Amino acid sequence: MQFTSERRLDDGVLEREFTLDEIPGILWTPASASAPVPLILLGHPGGVHRMYPRLADRARHSAAEGFASATIELPGSGDRPRSDVAEQARADLRRALAAGEPVGDEIVDRLVLPLVEQAVPEWRAVLDALLALPGIGGPVGYSGGVIAIGTRLAAVEPRIAAAILFAGSFVPRATFEEARQVTIPLHVLLQWDDEGNDRQAALDLFDAFGSEEKTLHANMGGHTGVPKFEGDAAAQFLTRHLK
Amino acid sequence: MQFTSERRLDDGVLEREFTLDEIPGILWTPASASAPVPLILLGHPGGVHRMYPRLADRARHSAAEGFASATIELPGSGDRPRSDVAEQARADLRRALAAGEPVGDEIVDRLVLPLVEQAVPEWRAVLDALLALPGIGGPVGYSGGVIAIGTRLAAVEPRIAAAILFAGSFVPRATFEEARQVTIPLHVLLQWDDEGNDRQAALDLFDAFGSEEKTLHANMGGHTGVPKFEGDAAAQFLTRHLK
Repeated sequence: MQFTSERRLDDGVLEREFTLDEIPGILWTPASASAPVPLILLGHPGGVHRMYPRLADRARHSAAEGFASATIELPGSGDRPRSDVAEQARADLRRALAAGEPVGDEIVDRLVLPLVEQAVPEWRAVLDALLALPGIGGPVGYSGGVIAIGTRLAAVEPRIAAAILFAGSFVPRATFEEARQVTIPLHVLLQWDDEGNDRQAALDLFDAFGSEEKTLHANMGGHTGVPKFEGDAAAQFLTRHLK
Repeated sequence: MQFTSERRLDDGVLEREFTLDEIPGILWTPASASAPVPLILLGHPGGVHRMYPRLADRARHSAAEGFASATIELPGSGDRPRSDVAEQARADLRRALAAGEPVGDEIVDRLVLPLVEQAVPEWRAVLDALLALPGIGGPVGYSGGVIAIGTRLAAVEPRIAAAILFAGSFVPRATFEEARQVTIPLHVLLQWDDEGNDRQAALDLFDAFGSEEKTLHANMGGHTGVPKFEGDAAAQFLTRHLK
């Protein structure tokens, strides 16, 4: 892991950009901490620079609660090389949506599964590197989209102790099976009238998770309209489980 | 409104039992307040004495946040006279459940609608009396079951500014229509595996509410298993809307 830039934000949070095996990422750590801090992996739909304002906001909110946060670019997003398979699936998705057709499982599988296959090992490699840094201790939480990535990570990565999942993206059939393997506490966010999301699939996925403690928070307001008060609820969930 | 008893709980909260037109109720007010406080109407499934520990717990939690709370006995519950119609509907319900049959709309209507018809005007009369007391100002919130009563109250009583509704009881068909008339902020609690509740009906009712701000919190754990942290979430919702 190589740090490529470093700056202090106005609230004292240390923001460092890094790369690991050509994967770019950002690490935020609290202004000061007397002991190693828990870590939150920030998921997002791809495009770290496009998502930066929202990611930095979440990271600063978490830093105030004593957490470090980190994010990495998704395969095929931002400056990372595109994959032909994913680009083809994206084109097929756009065509189906434009034609008002239902988005078939086959397109969803081609669109999401290769992303999960590649992103999950990348997250795990980054997690190895982050936990080796001084000042970052764990436990580790995951927070954000893509829900198929978060589900796989929660199922296979034992260092992740709790997860906030955003039900706002297509769910491959395989993800429902993986959800049954998840046993950590979950906090699932659903935008009830999310134009690009299948509400019933999100409810079915919530039902499928094997976790004994799982909470669904559904709100109005479209894909990007998650109410501000959900930031506080998310912070409370992470504090309950990572402190 | 006549007060029939008065005592201070160990945290200083003043608990007063009252009757209004032969309806018994309980009023809890904070230990001290410099100005008139907002009021929360505490809904429940009937049987104030049976429910007392949980009601008092909610009231004390709210008093610590600066709210008064009040509850009244439901028609046909506790020491109030039984109605033949309700008793017959209850017997039919028990028979259907024992036989493993689906509970028909007709039984639900007979069971719940007369309760709504009688309870809602009673709540409104009690609200008149409570808001006339020194020290209680408003705004007013509703919190609890029966969801058909809470829905009707939220639809018809303009003094109620926000409501927490517990989706844990049968929903008459008419309630879905009334839900569309509700426009105040709502916080709806659903126990995902509630043995005595129809999950799909609860989701349909949540969908039907006309409110621009409505949040659904679904948790595991059966009808009485609402997690402790939901108490804090409820308090935050009420503070956001009634302060």
